[in-house]
Amino acid sequence: MKRSKQVRQSELKDTIKETPFITDEELAKRFGVSIQTIRLDRMELSIPELRERIKSVATHEWNETVKALPIEEVIGEVVDLELDQRAISILDIKPEHVFSRNNIARGHHLFAQANSLAVAVINDELALTAGSSIRFNRPVKLGERVVAKAFVKGDDHKGRTIVDVHSYVENDEVFAGSFEMFRDHDPKEMNEG
Amino acid sequence: MKRSKQVRQSELKDTIKETPFITDEELAKRFGVSIQTIRLDRMELSIPELRERIKSVATHEWNETVKALPIEEVIGEVVDLELDQRAISILDIKPEHVFSRNNIARGHHLFAQANSLAVAVINDELALTAGSSIRFNRPVKLGERVVAKAFVKGDDHKGRTIVDVHSYVENDEVFAGSFEMFRDHDPKEMNEG
Repeated sequence: MKRSKQVRQSELKDTIKETPFITDEELAKRFGVSIQTIRLDRMELSIPELRERIKSVATHEWNETVKALPIEEVIGEVVDLELDQRAISILDIKPEHVFSRNNIARGHHLFAQANSLAVAVINDELALTAGSSIRFNRPVKLGERVVAKAFVKGDDHKGRTIVDVHSYVENDEVFAGSFEMFRDHDPKEMNEG
Repeated sequence: MKRSKQVRQSELKDTIKETPFITDEELAKRFGVSIQTIRLDRMELSIPELRERIKSVATHEWNETVKALPIEEVIGEVVDLELDQRAISILDIKPEHVFSRNNIARGHHLFAQANSLAVAVINDELALTAGSSIRFNRPVKLGERVVAKAFVKGDDHKGRTIVDVHSYVENDEVFAGSFEMFRDHDPKEMNEG
């Protein structure tokens, strides 16, 4: 049964609030309407398009600069960053990311997005991955958008920084990893500085 | 102190026997002589050049075909393969594989080599990675050659195939990973077929 326009717009607003990086295509699919309808809904609701929503997150919350590597070496687009705290990046799964045979994203691209985000979140000039434990929870398909969220858990007994990364397609967790990061300074100094 | 030519050639022969995928550059560095000297030594000892050594391994031992993905989608060059048993691939670390800042190979390329080898060794049309636990034991630098060796350990209680991969630069283990592979058939059938 089709929702009324009012119900749809209300749900659309909530959906975008919960998952701000969702595309018009995904919204259209979810609500069973055309992309054009979603665009009109957004205009009526004054919800900016995705690119603007990403920029707005970046401008308002992302006041820090990646330290451990040049930003262009991060796999995916960093849209949020608080050094030694958390970071978010977005990766759109394109033909070069998938197995030709079944259009499923290859694991190493999801790993690369997560691992480079774990590097990027470190507030240090040198960050290297010492180890990692990861899960691929469901296949990611061509055209899907993967939002990776990194969270710095703290340091282990060897002074390595543990960064957990969870990656989502819409609300499904598709990847989870814990990264043990080596960095080039005594982490105790940082708490003092 | 320089080795005599005789001693060097004897050691050279042993070194190539132990690490057949070593380059002339690496040999020259190790023996403290020029690349030209290594080439002359090889000619006198009738040891073929690296490319020929790789081909010879491939021709003699690699009688099987990768099933789970097209061979060109394997990251690195497969030089040995016995399906559901073991596989070896070689990846030369080039500028596109390293952090621009320190010429250290990025973790996801070593992961990609190992993970795609773990896929390639599976004797099935569909192989997907369910999870993995990995260690990066020492940084790999630009110009180094990484030899990854995959070994199929068997199936776990969930019917996932466990593939261990160890990657080496010369004799140093630089990466170790255990991959839990999902495949699309009942592994019991395979033992019967």
